[in-house]
Amino acid sequence: KIDGERLNSTLHHSCQWGATPDGGMNRVALNDDDAKVRRWLIQEVEKLGCTVKIDEMGNIFGIREGKNPNLAPIGIGSHLDTQATGGRYDGILGVLTGLEILRACHDANYKANAPLAVVCWTNEEGCRFAPYAIGSACWAHTYTTEFGQACTDADGITIGAELERHGMKGEHKCSHEALPLSAHFEVHIEQGPILDYAETPSPVAAVTGVQGLRWYDIVLQGVGAHAGTTPMELRKDAVIASAKMILEIEKIAVDFKGKATSGKIGSNGQPQAYNCILNQVELGLDLRHEDEETLEKMSQEVVRACQEIAKKSGVQIVKWDEKMRSEAMDFDKVAVEHIKGACLRSGFKRFDIVSGAGHDSVYTAMHCPTAMLFVRCKDGLSHTPVEYSSPEDIEVGAKVLLDAVLSYDKK
Amino acid sequence: KIDGERLNSTLHHSCQWGATPDGGMNRVALNDDDAKVRRWLIQEVEKLGCTVKIDEMGNIFGIREGKNPNLAPIGIGSHLDTQATGGRYDGILGVLTGLEILRACHDANYKANAPLAVVCWTNEEGCRFAPYAIGSACWAHTYTTEFGQACTDADGITIGAELERHGMKGEHKCSHEALPLSAHFEVHIEQGPILDYAETPSPVAAVTGVQGLRWYDIVLQGVGAHAGTTPMELRKDAVIASAKMILEIEKIAVDFKGKATSGKIGSNGQPQAYNCILNQVELGLDLRHEDEETLEKMSQEVVRACQEIAKKSGVQIVKWDEKMRSEAMDFDKVAVEHIKGACLRSGFKRFDIVSGAGHDSVYTAMHCPTAMLFVRCKDGLSHTPVEYSSPEDIEVGAKVLLDAVLSYDKK
Ligand SMILES: NC(=O)NCCC(=O)O
Ligand SMILES: NC(=O)NCCC(=O)O
Repeated sequence: KIDGERLNSTLHHSCQWGATPDGGMNRVALNDDDAKVRRWLIQEVEKLGCTVKIDEMGNIFGIREGKNPNLAPIGIGSHLDTQATGGRYDGILGVLTGLEILRACHDANYKANAPLAVVCWTNEEGCRFAPYAIGSACWAHTYTTEFGQACTDADGITIGAELERHGMKGEHKCSHEALPLSAHFEVHIEQGPILDYAETPSPVAAVTGVQGLRWYDIVLQGVGAHAGTTPMELRKDAVIASAKMILEIEKIAVDFKGKATSGKIGSNGQPQAYNCILNQVELGLDLRHEDEETLEKMSQEVVRACQEIAKKSGVQIVKWDEKMRSEAMDFDKVAVEHIKGACLRSGFKRFDIVSGAGHDSVYTAMHCPTAMLFVRCKDGLSHTPVEYSSPEDIEVGAKVLLDAVLSYDKK
Repeated sequence: KIDGERLNSTLHHSCQWGATPDGGMNRVALNDDDAKVRRWLIQEVEKLGCTVKIDEMGNIFGIREGKNPNLAPIGIGSHLDTQATGGRYDGILGVLTGLEILRACHDANYKANAPLAVVCWTNEEGCRFAPYAIGSACWAHTYTTEFGQACTDADGITIGAELERHGMKGEHKCSHEALPLSAHFEVHIEQGPILDYAETPSPVAAVTGVQGLRWYDIVLQGVGAHAGTTPMELRKDAVIASAKMILEIEKIAVDFKGKATSGKIGSNGQPQAYNCILNQVELGLDLRHEDEETLEKMSQEVVRACQEIAKKSGVQIVKWDEKMRSEAMDFDKVAVEHIKGACLRSGFKRFDIVSGAGHDSVYTAMHCPTAMLFVRCKDGLSHTPVEYSSPEDIEVGAKVLLDAVLSYDKK
């Protein structure tokens, strides 16, 4: 039923909006290209006779009728926004697989018991607007819609203003109560190397849960001074202190078997010069762990170690803000079993992977049975233009997900 | 003869152009404020009946006639441009002391043997346009005027274009041959803590030479990847590699008894996100040593160590450009003796300081006897808004410099 060629070609067709010359994507949430691909998606699902509902956060639900009008739709969703230096698969694959499943049902004139809905969640990546996954998180009431619409990008532009500008602020309340789902299935590239580097490689795997993650904004204040005249031992150099912290944080993450990434580094708008000791350094930090309690301990250890380094370096930590937190999540046992069953039926020894990345499914899982299917990606690379999943693996992913969704629908 | 109050109040008067709310200065070379203060300087020297000559690099020579029309002027110069996060003394003190000396001679109707010239050199700081001291360096023929005028700032604007815009591109050739000096004296704040922290503190000291310095632009290329899914041990993180290099470079500088500063850090225009391992890091590095040969060895050791770190971190050094080099310089023995004599006559035990900072005098020293006088500055801090020298010390500096200039003139 799944047309692998159609799925793959439609996926790359949809990447015309936001493509970068290096083969990657820059379709950060609610930029003009994101608006274009969203409009295109709406047209495509309308062609299939589906009903489109958009909520106040711009989440799009393309709903194909089911046999039983009393059931809430089974959502098949993910996101169309990308990192600024992103690839062609992260999120995009999940929405396009949802579209392919609707097309396949349409072609076969197949009606499930529950309505089936492709869902495009707004701003999953979080790179233009933090927190990440704000669309699904507002749907889950983790944040209010007011908070979500007020999130700003680096230029102070709000999500609400961008939704208005693109005519994408829908009439429906953004809420699992107003637009409930009876389940949520998400196919996503793994974004990690487990499937690609496994002894017995597999194109797909069931996901049992998602790591906890926290983002921090840190500002270090040293003392600006002359690079040529200030004795090395008298310096209060914010760059030196930040370098020490970055390396110590890395060490702590390894010790705790978690992950730490200092992905943002700059001088908080302060001018920089070869011959000036930099007085301020700004860091953006990402900490993760599969276990929420250990993540909490690891975060505390990071704070303690950085305070110690700051003290020794004569530098002050003038800001240490938690920008975002998304707790470790276990997916619904029953929904996961349907994914595992579909994997086995397709002949693939299933892996149980805990997702390193956060996903919209973390938030849907709070209000409906949720499960995910990972598709192998080359070298585990993601959030980079070289991100790649083969057309064959993508086809397998769609077949397995369709099987899981229909078996869940029949349960 | 020196009017300390006039000197100090004129200095602060001239800081109205480019003053920042924190008490510091942002008068980077050839911005509008730099143009305003230069125009003001020209007016002030013209009021004293001096001749103003401007060369093609915008260097300003305000010349008071001497008794002997065959002698080239004795220059008393420095610069009026500041760092973007600069103070009110660095450079400014030298030019304003030159103006005060002309005013004092004018008041006393005193004519030296040689003409006396206050000189304002263009773009000494080098923070908007590298190399630093490009005005005096072109005068010395270290660079051609074409090269100097073509230097660009971060926005691609050239020195030549800015000189045109401000009407500051003079008619005189920028050359020690076209506008020769018979000597160059420069008073400057020390910018280091030797005078302020000495056991027997002194407001002034003779400078015997200047450290060698080199600036480097470095770009590290790692592999961008997902912060949540990429195992710590598989990362090729440009931030981690840069942190290791920054700390190793610091260690090498300490071992060589030199100085190293990583004052610029960023991602070379690449977007940054909490959840992306940064693929590129850009560093701006400043290396210094009093001894040119040791500086060369130290630079080589820095390169070697960074290559080793890059290799171990799986990161490539895709750029390692020497942006600028200014060799260690010993000042003219005779000119220095006149400074020392003037210090002693004023009752101050003289120190022989090797300047940590580069100065226009490094370049004038290549073509005329040159010497410098340092004035104490608080805690040795410079290139920061808190830079400070007391009115008393500033007055002493001007008196000692006038004494040195006149004794040199009489020799
Ligand atoms: N899937 C994905 O990259 N989501 C963004 C949130 C995260 O950083 O994990
Ligand atoms: N005096 C001064 O700060 N000059 C700038 C060149 C340098 O960095 O030493």
